[in-house]
Amino acid sequence: MELSNYYAPTKIVFGKEAEKQTGELVRTCGCRKVLVHYGGGSVKKSGLLDRIFAALGDAGVAYVSLGGVVPNPRLSLVYEGIELCRREGVDFILAVGGGSVIDSAKAIGYGLANEGDVWDYYDRKRTAEACLPIGVVLTIAAAGSEMSDSSVITKDEGGIKRGYSSNYCRPKFAVMNPELTMTLPWYQTESGCVDIMMHTMERYLNQSENMELTDGFSEHLIRTVMKHAKILLEHPEDYASRAEVMWAGSLSHNGLTGFGTDGGDWATHQLEHELGGMYDVAHGAGLAAVWGSWARYVLDARPKRFAQFAVQVMEVEDTGDDRKTAEKGIEAMEAFYRSIQMPTSMKELGIEPTEEEIRELARKCSFDRTRTIGRVKKLDVEDIYRIYMQAR
Amino acid sequence: MELSNYYAPTKIVFGKEAEKQTGELVRTCGCRKVLVHYGGGSVKKSGLLDRIFAALGDAGVAYVSLGGVVPNPRLSLVYEGIELCRREGVDFILAVGGGSVIDSAKAIGYGLANEGDVWDYYDRKRTAEACLPIGVVLTIAAAGSEMSDSSVITKDEGGIKRGYSSNYCRPKFAVMNPELTMTLPWYQTESGCVDIMMHTMERYLNQSENMELTDGFSEHLIRTVMKHAKILLEHPEDYASRAEVMWAGSLSHNGLTGFGTDGGDWATHQLEHELGGMYDVAHGAGLAAVWGSWARYVLDARPKRFAQFAVQVMEVEDTGDDRKTAEKGIEAMEAFYRSIQMPTSMKELGIEPTEEEIRELARKCSFDRTRTIGRVKKLDVEDIYRIYMQAR
Repeated sequence: MELSNYYAPTKIVFGKEAEKQTGELVRTCGCRKVLVHYGGGSVKKSGLLDRIFAALGDAGVAYVSLGGVVPNPRLSLVYEGIELCRREGVDFILAVGGGSVIDSAKAIGYGLANEGDVWDYYDRKRTAEACLPIGVVLTIAAAGSEMSDSSVITKDEGGIKRGYSSNYCRPKFAVMNPELTMTLPWYQTESGCVDIMMHTMERYLNQSENMELTDGFSEHLIRTVMKHAKILLEHPEDYASRAEVMWAGSLSHNGLTGFGTDGGDWATHQLEHELGGMYDVAHGAGLAAVWGSWARYVLDARPKRFAQFAVQVMEVEDTGDDRKTAEKGIEAMEAFYRSIQMPTSMKELGIEPTEEEIRELARKCSFDRTRTIGRVKKLDVEDIYRIYMQAR
Repeated sequence: MELSNYYAPTKIVFGKEAEKQTGELVRTCGCRKVLVHYGGGSVKKSGLLDRIFAALGDAGVAYVSLGGVVPNPRLSLVYEGIELCRREGVDFILAVGGGSVIDSAKAIGYGLANEGDVWDYYDRKRTAEACLPIGVVLTIAAAGSEMSDSSVITKDEGGIKRGYSSNYCRPKFAVMNPELTMTLPWYQTESGCVDIMMHTMERYLNQSENMELTDGFSEHLIRTVMKHAKILLEHPEDYASRAEVMWAGSLSHNGLTGFGTDGGDWATHQLEHELGGMYDVAHGAGLAAVWGSWARYVLDARPKRFAQFAVQVMEVEDTGDDRKTAEKGIEAMEAFYRSIQMPTSMKELGIEPTEEEIRELARKCSFDRTRTIGRVKKLDVEDIYRIYMQAR
């Protein structure tokens, strides 16, 4: 196994009415002024935002607020947040929402704690030295950003979606009440489930030695999310299923399911980032749309591992031929995606790029032909082009 | 499920030669002077201690050292450590060893960061408000103290062994090189494996609702440790097995396997604490010696859960009768303990208390009849007496 680091310092308060502890949690972080950062109307309509404001008031914590975060959160709002916080003397950011809001908060945090243009980090020009402390009230189970070291931001001009990771941005706490996710539209719930599964699948389908402990956790996590994704399609208010999926979301991206590995593949995420940046699709749905095409393209570089995935996760019968078993596993996962009404192609995702647009996607995904993506098999611009074409 | 907290902020550096990073890890904690705390001759003989001293020197970190920690670590040495640290202006403790050394370091940390007698916390007279920061170089996989909130200390007079838990003492970092555990005597390795399994079994065999995610992790963790405990009996230098067991040790006691539960039972640990305090037995072996007697005594309070344990962990066939299945599961676990040469009774543990001594053990375990222990079934002094008698 590989030399492995693990660092997941976020304090989790999980369960019904957990959000009532928000004021106290913020207060004990010892800040002067908080930015409450949020997205659209749902946290307002549900009354959650007012309850958070009230909780901060009760705890004697001063705050300002900034809403308007959209899925595939925009750099322009990040800049706006940085300015607002500088003006107001903000020293703590409370993200009330899902991954987009948390990622936007992380970017604002980087911008405030370092000199220069925050986009430089996402553009891989510099590395950050610090981040403002961040707290989370989670309302969407998907991105795992509440415990992860990553954030993904989209630059408005050109729709360039880029991720940046460092331990500095791991939230100090996350308040997680599964009930808050019950009112999500079904498409967002299921898209979130795919995202959660993929955070572990990206790590599991790797090119390294692996630990049995990590493998078993990963297999169980994916199977559990699959089971409850199906239940939630029919019963969106099932508390137990909401809880399983929500906690899986945090564990799937906090490092646990990658422990002892090379860190995983992540090509599917890179492939999706370009789709998300250019077509503004839901992240999880975008992942589902390209995963099968990626898997078939790289399968021969690691048939044994894909066969293990097929047997242990998809419960496919071991044919004795790794390649064949692996293919059946990929088919079974695509059948699962369809069963929860997730796409397995760009067409099903609702976008129909021309061949020229596919060339453009591949060019951007390869950072203008300056990088490869993936670890199972290193993919250059031509490989990326072929996978996108296959995924149309 | 229950309202659940999770907080495991320890930074883990895991793998071959991980200890080389110790100096840098201590340095980034920003301390002035470090106490290097350790046990007996093995870390000296192996050269590890000298390598740690050299690493601290290279990192420009000043230090003093205090050895002599014994299994069931003594309060007297804790007092000595507190005095030494006060005199030397120590503001960081580096524990080089296993659970006993880390627990001793935590107690010294409490003593330095709070006023008054440190034993008050273990004696449940006061609660701590802080703890000096602690780092760990782990050499024994067992107690999980490198990520846990707990420490257990034995008062020299009367052999009173007591635990105290708070988030303040969770280590800042833990350096974990599985190779460092290869030279342990087999009895300590296997005893450690039992301790690791028990930290999850105590949580799993509970009286609450449970999450599927947590259950699956727990079942897999216990099965994985069982498998590798057997391998290590024959092949103590198997790196992969050492790694599986070592990481399982941290995860088993950092809160992960109790997530969403009532926190677990812990009666077996309380029963063992009295044995450890009075007879100075190895902790894991002591747990194995009493577990079966505890399990049979409380089984009827939760037959369904014990049956799940039997089927999912011990891979016993489901008889359709929970009680019968559960009993087979307990038998199977005892057979496993014997297979790794661990005791299933006090006699096999090497102690033969008189009935009067059993009365004394029960009296002490019930804190002079002022408390019950356990959650599956609340056990008073008479219950405790009967379980001890059964375990003779």
